[in-house]
Amino acid sequence: MTRFATMDALRVACMTLSEGDGAAVTAAQRRQDSLTKPQGSLGRLEEIVAWLARWQGRANPKLDRVAVIVFAGSHGVTAQGVSAFPAEVTVQMVANFQAGGAAINQLARAAGASLDVIALEVERPTADFTQAPAMSEAEFLAAVSTGYNAVKKGTDLICFGEMGIGNTTTASAIAAALFGEAGEHWVGRGTGVDDAGLSRKAAAVDAGLDRHHADLADPLKIAAALGGRELAAIFGATLAARHHGIPVLLDGFVVAAAVAPLARLNPSGLAHVLAAHVSAETPHRRLLDMLGLAPLLDLGMRLGEGSGACLAVNLVRSALECHAGMASFAEAGVSEK
Amino acid sequence: MTRFATMDALRVACMTLSEGDGAAVTAAQRRQDSLTKPQGSLGRLEEIVAWLARWQGRANPKLDRVAVIVFAGSHGVTAQGVSAFPAEVTVQMVANFQAGGAAINQLARAAGASLDVIALEVERPTADFTQAPAMSEAEFLAAVSTGYNAVKKGTDLICFGEMGIGNTTTASAIAAALFGEAGEHWVGRGTGVDDAGLSRKAAAVDAGLDRHHADLADPLKIAAALGGRELAAIFGATLAARHHGIPVLLDGFVVAAAVAPLARLNPSGLAHVLAAHVSAETPHRRLLDMLGLAPLLDLGMRLGEGSGACLAVNLVRSALECHAGMASFAEAGVSEK
Repeated sequence: MTRFATMDALRVACMTLSEGDGAAVTAAQRRQDSLTKPQGSLGRLEEIVAWLARWQGRANPKLDRVAVIVFAGSHGVTAQGVSAFPAEVTVQMVANFQAGGAAINQLARAAGASLDVIALEVERPTADFTQAPAMSEAEFLAAVSTGYNAVKKGTDLICFGEMGIGNTTTASAIAAALFGEAGEHWVGRGTGVDDAGLSRKAAAVDAGLDRHHADLADPLKIAAALGGRELAAIFGATLAARHHGIPVLLDGFVVAAAVAPLARLNPSGLAHVLAAHVSAETPHRRLLDMLGLAPLLDLGMRLGEGSGACLAVNLVRSALECHAGMASFAEAGVSEK
Repeated sequence: MTRFATMDALRVACMTLSEGDGAAVTAAQRRQDSLTKPQGSLGRLEEIVAWLARWQGRANPKLDRVAVIVFAGSHGVTAQGVSAFPAEVTVQMVANFQAGGAAINQLARAAGASLDVIALEVERPTADFTQAPAMSEAEFLAAVSTGYNAVKKGTDLICFGEMGIGNTTTASAIAAALFGEAGEHWVGRGTGVDDAGLSRKAAAVDAGLDRHHADLADPLKIAAALGGRELAAIFGATLAARHHGIPVLLDGFVVAAAVAPLARLNPSGLAHVLAAHVSAETPHRRLLDMLGLAPLLDLGMRLGEGSGACLAVNLVRSALECHAGMASFAEAGVSEK
């Protein structure tokens, strides 16, 4: 078990990251170029294979163990009227995940992925960040550690999802704190707030930025003061995936905001991450642009739970099937250019 | 067996099309709105379910039988130096499909789809359309009929692919003839021609438009004079799918050009079709825009074979899994908005 006892210990862990296996990438690309297709004609499927090769450290990657972990947390900022759904839905949806009735249950099955659900003190919301830090440093580090330890070594590919009524506001606050601009620049309609709700979200973000202005130079302090337990856990889990050599498929706006502090701490912090999709939550595309991530899918989804990430798993499987199963020009006796 | 004996008989078949099952769509949408997610939050996955429901005529669609059919043909226009690969690659790739070594073999397996390969007189190229009609009306109707008969009733979802060195030039010629503008507006690099090859493609298209200008008011005559056997077969197969109530996932530029005449003959001719992807072949996006089709995927692919269509099958499966497997708000005891 890993336990980050101090912010500085976590900071050090974020700065000591491998750059992956360049030799495996070279070997994988050489194989791609020998296969019976015009070079590069599988487009981003070829990029996916190179990404798997780099982070798994294998010229012939595998996808035997694909995992989805959904983290859930409760948010004090719901007191500001920022969500279309009541706060108790977080707990109810955790039960729905456990009973197999949510979208992510169906999507994980369709992706051939295991599904774990980790509820982080959902009966005890974080503080309302407009009034106080969402979490103390100790609470934040506990959630990061929980996420870190949830990732099993030997996993071949991992997706993180989240559930937490109010957490698009949390995500907007983190994005605004990390990248600047006022709340209205970073809020979206989440599960479906009206114009008044959208204004309340922007006002809550602005109040949070104002209250915690002394912390805004430090990505980890931002994540503690304006974040949430499930976002902190996703931060920790994404760091663990890097340490264990596991490529990560990123879900939507909340997950992107959860991991954004890692990119601010270390310019290569998200090199092992691919953005599975861009969601309908307006600020998501802007955030991906800031992180230099090009999404694989753009299907107007806005559900969270890891749904967009999970949907991309079969694209990754298809890319790998082509890499592993296709004949070369020489093997098939096909003339080259 | 269906045999279209005359162009007029085919024209009549293209004008007598069902509009699908609106009641199944209404029932499917009612179910979608009851499931434990914000309404509409699955984005295009919800649209996919409605599309399956309409064309299968079932509020609870199924995907037990998913089929991929790849049609191959040879093109006389290769004499104009329009391809980066030699013409014999068409026959060699058919053998590769049959041996299981091509990308489409791997992608069909990953999609849980059957794969049939139908070679249409690949040893006997069509005429060079810059010199003569690519096919006589009898040859064209024979290829259309072959495609029509290749579609099995009871299939739940179907993808068509193509193989034919030179056929992006054929597709460009059809698009230019149907939608106007000169060759340079409609050509792309195909399997990878250089600038000189791209100019030869544009010149070949312009020569074809000039030679067959008397036929350009009739979409079927365009498909015969400027098309190819595999494109004609895809046209026939797409018509058969509509007659049999089978939704179709469209592949790339060549397949879109093959079915475009159906949209010109009948404004609702492609209502049962979803564009699986937009490829890297430059004119593909323009052609989809002309057809009013919004692609599901945009992954920079440019391989053909049905690869893009096949890749989208698992998105369709995931959409259906959510529809079939999710709990409603009432069933899960989750509070609504």
